[in-house]
Amino acid sequence: MYRWQRRSIHVLGGLTKVPKGELPAVGTCAEIHHTFTSNDVENFAQLTGDTNPLHLDPIFCTKTQFKKPIVHGILCTSLFPTIFGATLPGSIYVSQSIRFKKPIYVNEPLQIRIEVTQVKERMRLVICNTECFNAQGEVAITGQANVLLPK
Amino acid sequence: MYRWQRRSIHVLGGLTKVPKGELPAVGTCAEIHHTFTSNDVENFAQLTGDTNPLHLDPIFCTKTQFKKPIVHGILCTSLFPTIFGATLPGSIYVSQSIRFKKPIYVNEPLQIRIEVTQVKERMRLVICNTECFNAQGEVAITGQANVLLPK
Repeated sequence: MYRWQRRSIHVLGGLTKVPKGELPAVGTCAEIHHTFTSNDVENFAQLTGDTNPLHLDPIFCTKTQFKKPIVHGILCTSLFPTIFGATLPGSIYVSQSIRFKKPIYVNEPLQIRIEVTQVKERMRLVICNTECFNAQGEVAITGQANVLLPK
Repeated sequence: MYRWQRRSIHVLGGLTKVPKGELPAVGTCAEIHHTFTSNDVENFAQLTGDTNPLHLDPIFCTKTQFKKPIVHGILCTSLFPTIFGATLPGSIYVSQSIRFKKPIYVNEPLQIRIEVTQVKERMRLVICNTECFNAQGEVAITGQANVLLPK
Protein backbone atom coordinates (compact mmCIF):
# COMPACT_ATOMS: atom_id res chain seq x y z
CA MET A 1 0.00 0.00 0.00
CA TYR A 2 2.75 2.45 0.94
CA ARG A 3 5.16 3.25 -1.84
CA TRP A 4 7.90 5.84 -1.89
CA GLN A 5 6.05 8.14 -4.20
CA ARG A 6 2.82 8.06 -2.20
CA ARG A 7 3.64 11.02 -0.01
CA SER A 8 6.38 13.45 0.62
CA ILE A 9 6.48 15.28 3.94
CA HIS A 10 7.96 18.73 3.45
CA VAL A 11 10.28 20.39 5.91
CA LEU A 12 10.23 24.19 6.01
CA GLY A 13 12.54 26.72 7.65
CA GLY A 14 16.15 27.74 8.05
CA LEU A 15 17.46 24.24 8.75
CA THR A 16 16.70 23.25 5.16
CA LYS A 17 19.09 25.95 3.93
CA VAL A 18 22.21 24.94 5.91
CA PRO A 19 24.98 24.27 3.33
CA LYS A 20 26.34 20.72 3.30
CA GLY A 21 29.01 20.25 5.96
CA GLU A 22 28.19 23.48 7.84
CA LEU A 23 26.50 23.72 11.21
CA PRO A 24 23.26 25.62 11.85
CA ALA A 25 23.40 28.70 14.08
CA VAL A 26 21.62 28.82 17.43
CA GLY A 27 18.07 29.94 16.72
CA THR A 28 17.75 28.07 13.43
CA CYS A 29 14.28 26.56 13.11
CA ALA A 30 12.47 23.98 11.01
CA GLU A 31 8.88 22.84 10.85
CA ILE A 32 6.55 20.28 9.34
CA HIS A 33 2.81 20.64 8.79
CA HIS A 34 1.13 17.29 8.58
CA THR A 35 -2.06 15.31 9.23
CA PHE A 36 -2.13 11.64 10.21
CA THR A 37 -5.15 9.80 8.83
CA SER A 38 -6.90 6.74 10.28
CA ASN A 39 -5.12 4.71 7.60
CA ASP A 40 -1.75 5.97 8.88
CA VAL A 41 -2.68 5.11 12.46
CA GLU A 42 -3.81 1.61 11.44
CA ASN A 43 -0.58 1.05 9.55
CA PHE A 44 1.47 2.23 12.53
CA ALA A 45 -0.51 -0.05 14.85
CA GLN A 46 0.24 -2.93 12.52
CA LEU A 47 3.93 -2.05 12.26
CA THR A 48 4.45 -1.75 16.03
CA GLY A 49 1.73 -4.02 17.42
CA ASP A 50 0.38 -1.13 19.51
CA THR A 51 -3.33 -1.83 19.20
CA ASN A 52 -4.36 0.42 22.11
CA PRO A 53 -8.07 1.10 21.45
CA LEU A 54 -7.44 4.80 22.21
CA HIS A 55 -6.06 4.94 18.66
CA LEU A 56 -8.26 2.46 16.84
CA ASP A 57 -11.68 2.02 18.43
CA PRO A 58 -14.08 4.99 18.16
CA ILE A 59 -16.64 3.33 20.43
CA PHE A 60 -14.09 2.64 23.17
CA CYS A 61 -12.93 6.27 22.87
CA THR A 62 -16.42 7.71 23.57
CA LYS A 63 -16.01 6.38 27.13
CA THR A 64 -12.62 8.11 27.64
CA GLN A 65 -11.55 11.70 28.28
CA PHE A 66 -10.59 11.97 24.58
CA LYS A 67 -14.03 11.05 23.13
CA LYS A 68 -12.52 10.06 19.75
CA PRO A 69 -9.40 8.27 18.46
CA ILE A 70 -6.03 9.92 19.01
CA VAL A 71 -2.82 9.44 17.04
CA HIS A 72 -0.13 7.31 18.73
CA GLY A 73 1.99 9.94 20.53
CA ILE A 74 5.21 8.38 19.35
CA LEU A 75 4.03 8.52 15.73
CA CYS A 76 3.69 12.31 16.10
CA THR A 77 7.10 12.38 17.79
CA SER A 78 8.59 10.48 14.83
CA LEU A 79 8.38 13.69 12.84
CA PHE A 80 11.20 15.24 14.92
CA PRO A 81 13.84 12.90 13.44
CA THR A 82 12.17 13.35 10.05
CA ILE A 83 13.30 16.99 10.14
CA PHE A 84 16.93 15.88 10.36
CA GLY A 85 16.68 12.75 8.23
CA ALA A 86 15.07 14.64 5.38
CA THR A 87 17.27 17.77 5.47
CA LEU A 88 20.68 16.64 6.77
CA PRO A 89 21.06 13.04 5.51
CA GLY A 90 23.27 10.99 7.80
CA SER A 91 22.25 12.82 10.99
CA ILE A 92 22.41 10.55 14.03
CA TYR A 93 19.95 10.89 16.86
CA VAL A 94 21.56 10.71 20.31
CA SER A 95 18.60 11.35 22.56
CA GLN A 96 15.05 12.66 22.74
CA SER A 97 12.88 13.55 25.70
CA ILE A 98 9.13 13.67 25.19
CA ARG A 99 6.27 14.95 27.30
CA PHE A 100 2.77 14.32 26.00
CA LYS A 101 0.56 17.21 27.15
CA LYS A 102 -2.46 17.10 24.87
CA PRO A 103 -3.79 14.56 22.36
CA ILE A 104 -3.49 14.91 18.59
CA TYR A 105 -6.66 13.52 17.06
CA VAL A 106 -6.77 11.34 13.97
CA ASN A 107 -7.23 13.63 10.91
CA GLU A 108 -6.21 16.71 12.96
CA PRO A 109 -3.60 18.95 11.31
CA LEU A 110 -0.50 19.20 13.48
CA GLN A 111 2.63 21.27 13.34
CA ILE A 112 6.06 20.00 14.37
CA ARG A 113 8.70 22.60 15.18
CA ILE A 114 12.33 22.41 16.26
CA GLU A 115 14.66 25.21 17.25
CA VAL A 116 18.41 24.83 17.68
CA THR A 117 19.25 26.06 21.19
CA GLN A 118 22.90 24.98 21.47
CA VAL A 119 25.65 23.95 19.04
CA LYS A 120 28.72 21.99 20.18
CA GLU A 121 30.98 22.57 17.19
CA ARG A 122 33.76 20.10 17.94
CA MET A 123 31.32 17.20 18.35
CA ARG A 124 29.01 18.48 15.59
CA LEU A 125 26.20 18.08 18.14
CA VAL A 126 23.09 20.24 18.11
CA ILE A 127 20.64 20.50 20.99
CA CYS A 128 17.10 21.43 19.97
CA ASN A 129 13.79 22.27 21.55
CA THR A 130 11.17 20.05 19.94
CA GLU A 131 7.47 20.92 19.97
CA CYS A 132 4.28 19.61 18.41
CA PHE A 133 1.24 21.89 18.18
CA ASN A 134 -2.38 20.81 17.70
CA ALA A 135 -4.85 22.41 15.29
CA GLN A 136 -5.63 25.12 17.87
CA GLY A 137 -1.95 26.04 18.07
CA GLU A 138 -1.66 24.62 21.60
CA VAL A 139 1.50 22.75 22.62
CA ALA A 140 0.62 19.04 22.51
CA ILE A 141 4.10 17.53 22.85
CA THR A 142 7.32 19.09 24.15
CA GLY A 143 10.86 17.85 24.58
CA GLN A 144 14.47 18.18 23.65
CA ALA A 145 16.60 16.38 21.07
CA ASN A 146 20.37 15.92 20.81
CA VAL A 147 21.51 15.17 17.26
CA LEU A 148 24.94 14.59 15.70
CA LEU A 149 25.20 16.19 12.27
CA PRO A 150 27.18 14.67 9.38
CA LYS A 151 30.28 16.31 7.88
CA MET B 1 -0.21 -4.36 2.38
CA TYR B 2 -0.58 -4.20 6.16
CA ARG B 3 -3.69 -5.78 7.51
CA TRP B 4 -4.61 -6.44 11.10
CA GLN B 5 -4.04 -10.13 10.86
CA ARG B 6 -0.63 -9.83 9.21
CA ARG B 7 1.36 -9.84 12.40
CA SER B 8 0.85 -9.96 16.11
CA ILE B 9 3.60 -8.75 18.38
CA HIS B 10 3.52 -10.72 21.61
CA VAL B 11 4.16 -9.21 25.01
CA LEU B 12 5.63 -11.53 27.65
CA GLY B 13 6.05 -11.15 31.40
CA GLY B 14 4.27 -10.22 34.59
CA LEU B 15 2.62 -7.09 33.23
CA THR B 16 0.42 -9.25 30.99
CA LYS B 17 -1.03 -10.92 34.08
CA VAL B 18 -2.17 -7.82 36.00
CA PRO B 19 -5.94 -8.22 36.60
CA LYS B 20 -8.12 -5.54 35.00
CA GLY B 21 -8.34 -2.46 37.20
CA GLU B 22 -5.43 -3.44 39.46
CA LEU B 23 -1.99 -1.84 39.50
CA PRO B 24 1.27 -3.73 38.90
CA ALA B 25 3.73 -4.04 41.78
CA VAL B 26 7.15 -2.40 41.69
CA GLY B 27 9.45 -4.85 39.90
CA THR B 28 6.84 -6.11 37.43
CA CYS B 29 8.42 -6.61 34.01
CA ALA B 30 7.34 -7.11 30.43
CA GLU B 31 9.21 -7.78 27.22
CA ILE B 32 8.86 -8.08 23.47
CA HIS B 33 11.13 -10.02 21.11
CA HIS B 34 10.93 -8.66 17.61
CA THR B 35 12.78 -8.10 14.33
CA PHE B 36 12.16 -5.16 12.01
CA THR B 37 12.61 -6.03 8.34
CA SER B 38 13.64 -3.74 5.50
CA ASN B 39 10.00 -3.72 4.46
CA ASP B 40 9.03 -2.43 7.92
CA VAL B 41 11.69 0.28 7.76
CA GLU B 42 10.55 1.36 4.29
CA ASN B 43 6.95 1.52 5.48
CA PHE B 44 7.95 3.60 8.50
CA ALA B 45 9.98 5.94 6.28
CA GLN B 46 6.93 6.37 4.08
CA LEU B 47 4.63 6.94 7.05
CA THR B 48 6.85 9.58 8.69
CA GLY B 49 8.77 11.00 5.72
CA ASP B 50 12.06 10.18 7.46
CA THR B 51 14.09 9.08 4.44
CA ASN B 52 17.48 9.34 6.19
CA PRO B 53 19.78 7.13 4.03
CA LEU B 54 21.15 5.58 7.25
CA HIS B 55 17.94 3.53 7.22
CA LEU B 56 17.34 3.02 3.53
CA ASP B 57 20.50 3.18 1.43
CA PRO B 58 22.98 0.29 1.86
CA ILE B 59 25.61 2.01 -0.35
CA PHE B 60 25.46 5.26 1.65
CA CYS B 61 25.76 3.19 4.85
CA THR B 62 29.05 1.56 3.78
CA LYS B 63 30.64 5.02 4.16
CA THR B 64 29.33 5.48 7.72
CA GLN B 65 30.30 4.06 11.10
CA PHE B 66 27.34 1.66 10.86
CA LYS B 67 28.35 0.01 7.54
CA LYS B 68 24.80 -1.21 6.86
CA PRO B 69 21.23 0.11 7.30
CA ILE B 70 19.92 0.65 10.81
CA VAL B 71 16.32 0.73 12.02
CA HIS B 72 14.91 4.18 12.78
CA GLY B 73 15.59 4.56 16.52
CA ILE B 74 12.13 5.84 17.21
CA LEU B 75 10.57 2.81 15.49
CA CYS B 76 12.39 0.59 18.02
CA THR B 77 11.25 2.94 20.79
CA SER B 78 7.65 2.58 19.57
CA LEU B 79 7.61 -0.89 21.10
CA PHE B 80 7.65 0.60 24.63
CA PRO B 81 4.10 1.97 24.30
CA THR B 82 3.14 -1.26 22.54
CA ILE B 83 3.73 -3.07 25.83
CA PHE B 84 1.07 -0.94 27.51
CA GLY B 85 -1.26 -0.56 24.53
CA ALA B 86 -1.39 -4.31 24.00
CA THR B 87 -1.68 -5.40 27.63
CA LEU B 88 -3.51 -2.60 29.46
CA PRO B 89 -5.86 -1.09 26.84
CA GLY B 90 -6.58 2.57 27.51
CA SER B 91 -3.16 3.30 29.06
CA ILE B 92 -2.07 6.90 28.46
CA TYR B 93 1.57 7.77 27.89
CA VAL B 94 2.66 10.87 29.84
CA SER B 95 6.35 10.98 29.00
CA GLN B 96 9.29 9.03 27.63
CA SER B 97 12.99 9.77 27.68
CA ILE B 98 15.20 8.02 25.15
CA ARG B 99 18.96 7.68 24.79
CA PHE B 100 20.21 5.91 21.67
CA LYS B 101 23.46 4.14 22.58
CA LYS B 102 23.94 1.54 19.85
CA PRO B 103 22.28 0.90 16.50
CA ILE B 104 19.73 -1.82 15.84
CA TYR B 105 20.35 -3.16 12.34
CA VAL B 106 17.61 -4.00 9.86
CA ASN B 107 16.72 -7.71 10.26
CA GLU B 108 18.48 -7.85 13.67
CA PRO B 109 16.46 -9.48 16.46
CA LEU B 110 15.89 -7.01 19.29
CA GLN B 111 14.44 -7.28 22.75
CA ILE B 112 12.39 -4.57 24.42
CA ARG B 113 12.08 -4.69 28.19
CA ILE B 114 10.30 -2.53 30.75
CA GLU B 115 10.39 -2.75 34.53
CA VAL B 116 8.04 -0.89 36.83
CA THR B 117 10.20 1.11 39.26
CA GLN B 118 7.57 3.25 40.98
CA VAL B 119 3.79 3.18 41.38
CA LYS B 120 1.81 6.28 42.34
CA GLU B 121 -1.46 4.64 43.36
CA ARG B 122 -3.70 7.68 43.68
CA MET B 123 -2.84 8.91 40.19
CA ARG B 124 -2.65 5.36 38.76
CA LEU B 125 0.75 6.42 37.36
CA VAL B 126 3.57 3.93 36.85
CA ILE B 127 7.19 4.91 36.25
CA CYS B 128 9.22 2.36 34.29
CA ASN B 129 12.75 1.77 33.15
CA THR B 130 12.67 1.10 29.42
CA GLU B 131 15.45 -0.72 27.61
CA CYS B 132 16.10 -2.13 24.16
CA PHE B 133 18.79 -4.81 23.67
CA ASN B 134 20.49 -5.74 20.40
CA ALA B 135 21.13 -9.31 19.22
CA GLN B 136 24.32 -9.46 21.35
CA GLY B 137 22.32 -8.57 24.46
CA GLU B 138 23.92 -5.13 24.67
CA VAL B 139 21.83 -2.15 25.73
CA ALA B 140 21.03 -0.23 22.54
CA ILE B 141 18.39 2.19 23.88
CA THR B 142 17.65 3.26 27.45
CA GLY B 143 15.14 5.59 29.02
CA GLN B 144 12.24 6.02 31.35
CA ALA B 145 8.49 6.11 30.75
CA ASN B 146 5.63 7.54 32.82
CA VAL B 147 2.28 5.94 32.02
CA LEU B 148 -1.23 6.44 33.41
CA LEU B 149 -3.08 3.14 33.70
CA PRO B 150 -6.83 2.76 33.10
CA LYS B 151 -9.31 1.81 35.85
